[in-house]
Amino acid sequence: MIRPPRLEPGDLVALVAPAGPVTEAQAADAATILESWGLRTHRSRHALGRRFFLSGTDDERLADLEASFRDPEVRGILCIRGGYGTQRIVDRLDYDAVRADPKLVIGFSDITALHLALWHEAGLATVHGPSGSALINDPVTTAAARQAVTTTTPLTILATAPATVAATAGPPVAAIPADGAPVAHSTTAVARPAVPHAVPADADTSLVRHPGRADGTLLGGNLTLLAATAGTRHQPDLTGAILLIEEVNEAAFRVDRMIVQLKRSGWFDGLAGVAVGSFTACPDAGRVLAEHLNELGIPVLAGLPIGHGPTRFTVPLGVPAHLDADTGTLTVQPAVR
Amino acid sequence: MIRPPRLEPGDLVALVAPAGPVTEAQAADAATILESWGLRTHRSRHALGRRFFLSGTDDERLADLEASFRDPEVRGILCIRGGYGTQRIVDRLDYDAVRADPKLVIGFSDITALHLALWHEAGLATVHGPSGSALINDPVTTAAARQAVTTTTPLTILATAPATVAATAGPPVAAIPADGAPVAHSTTAVARPAVPHAVPADADTSLVRHPGRADGTLLGGNLTLLAATAGTRHQPDLTGAILLIEEVNEAAFRVDRMIVQLKRSGWFDGLAGVAVGSFTACPDAGRVLAEHLNELGIPVLAGLPIGHGPTRFTVPLGVPAHLDADTGTLTVQPAVR
Repeated sequence: MIRPPRLEPGDLVALVAPAGPVTEAQAADAATILESWGLRTHRSRHALGRRFFLSGTDDERLADLEASFRDPEVRGILCIRGGYGTQRIVDRLDYDAVRADPKLVIGFSDITALHLALWHEAGLATVHGPSGSALINDPVTTAAARQAVTTTTPLTILATAPATVAATAGPPVAAIPADGAPVAHSTTAVARPAVPHAVPADADTSLVRHPGRADGTLLGGNLTLLAATAGTRHQPDLTGAILLIEEVNEAAFRVDRMIVQLKRSGWFDGLAGVAVGSFTACPDAGRVLAEHLNELGIPVLAGLPIGHGPTRFTVPLGVPAHLDADTGTLTVQPAVR
Repeated sequence: MIRPPRLEPGDLVALVAPAGPVTEAQAADAATILESWGLRTHRSRHALGRRFFLSGTDDERLADLEASFRDPEVRGILCIRGGYGTQRIVDRLDYDAVRADPKLVIGFSDITALHLALWHEAGLATVHGPSGSALINDPVTTAAARQAVTTTTPLTILATAPATVAATAGPPVAAIPADGAPVAHSTTAVARPAVPHAVPADADTSLVRHPGRADGTLLGGNLTLLAATAGTRHQPDLTGAILLIEEVNEAAFRVDRMIVQLKRSGWFDGLAGVAVGSFTACPDAGRVLAEHLNELGIPVLAGLPIGHGPTRFTVPLGVPAHLDADTGTLTVQPAVR
């Protein structure tokens, strides 16, 4: 496993769009928040492109990503948004360039395909975190992201009932790093009014649980992209690992279909634990998840504010993690050194 | 490859629901049409059950299916509808019982999971065909289904522009068996008024094409279920085969994601040809399919009235087929002997 260096003041971060189209506002928000941390940003050549449901042709999106990996000045790569399209290009990425100069990669949702690819091809630890405008909307989200990319402090995330998350106006969860100081207390002020935005409800996952504690490498991300990776060369070996899953806007039968595909494809064989993030606008997903996960006989912790909910906690991937389903915490070692 | 015997007058057909819930009307329609062909029908024990999005528990649905395979009097098994749920039980089915007494299995959509399972585990030729009320709504659909299950005459299906299919009120396509007599002329009269029913438009797949002729075993079915089978033990070896795909109610980016998953999982490696059925209520799917399929360099024929469109042509699976993208025909050998 390779940890890229953490971001330092003055470091350059490339803003890329390897999946769906990005708006000027989303790109500007991402730049604003990173620059407020003392970083510099560079908008990739095709970041604001649009081609049907993609931000550009496969060649354009791949070129932006590879240019970022090859440019020695670039120290971080932030995917401005997900959407769809990352899996179309990951088999063609130049992983020699990735290995030659490991750098921090941040994104989530559709970017799950890139996380899995970088892990499989280069053993690179990455950061499952929000991007674009989501970085700016919630102070806990912002603070956790900053901690994950600029420090080597482990992140501890407290599970919380989704109803609580959805109903809370302010910082909705306690974010407690391993040194005991809540992340929320170090929230970065951003020059933007805190306008409450409509957030669809997270599925009630309170019945999704199995007690116990597990240690293992944290891998995973968006359930749809995990299922779409089944059978491909980037299907991960999850023996001894902790699988992270989150989802947005999928009907219960679709969530069921994807979980069953993972089961049938061996993703749960030898797994050490399951960390269940937000299942936002996925009605009845909790019922489906409880049926499939509770019977695995391994620790399962749901209600983690990771994914598409109002708080989008950042977690490193590809690094050791400790899941405690009894106290309701997930502690993850840093992705950076 | 094992061909089950064709259905003869007086044969018993079990009506099962291995996926979603079935209505009384759907079960009655299926029985009506089969009995009009001189067959007897038996409604399985849990056929009208309901449990969330399923017609029963996994154990109940599996028990119905296995009872049908084990009962020597049952000569055909008709899946009244798809929906979702078949993949939840196929890994537990007793394939020794299937091999011990091969019988005709009919269904489509979610039943694709069963077709793939029976092919992989028992080498059983099956029938990709409509069921329930769909059997009764359209005379071409009815006639093709009857021909496929009661005769050994090969079926020839003529591709047609989807716009034509959607706009036609009567029998919308010429259905020409290999002996030259259009199937539509032998349509079975059913005592039910031909009420025009609203059918969502099929995607325009007129740009999906690659010339040439291909011979190979016809395998496939619903694209979602094919993608959901990637990585599982039932992922088929399609070397030298012709892949059939059809879909309903999926956005273009989802169709793209599934096709890309098949590509990345090797389904197109060594493939002889692609038969593209209806992509009903899948806006812009034609654009996605053209991009991915036309470049394969193998014969691709779209516009086949197979799937969820107004005409739902029956085709055998697991048997030799001839795809002629130049004349726009797919000829399939019988699934029965």
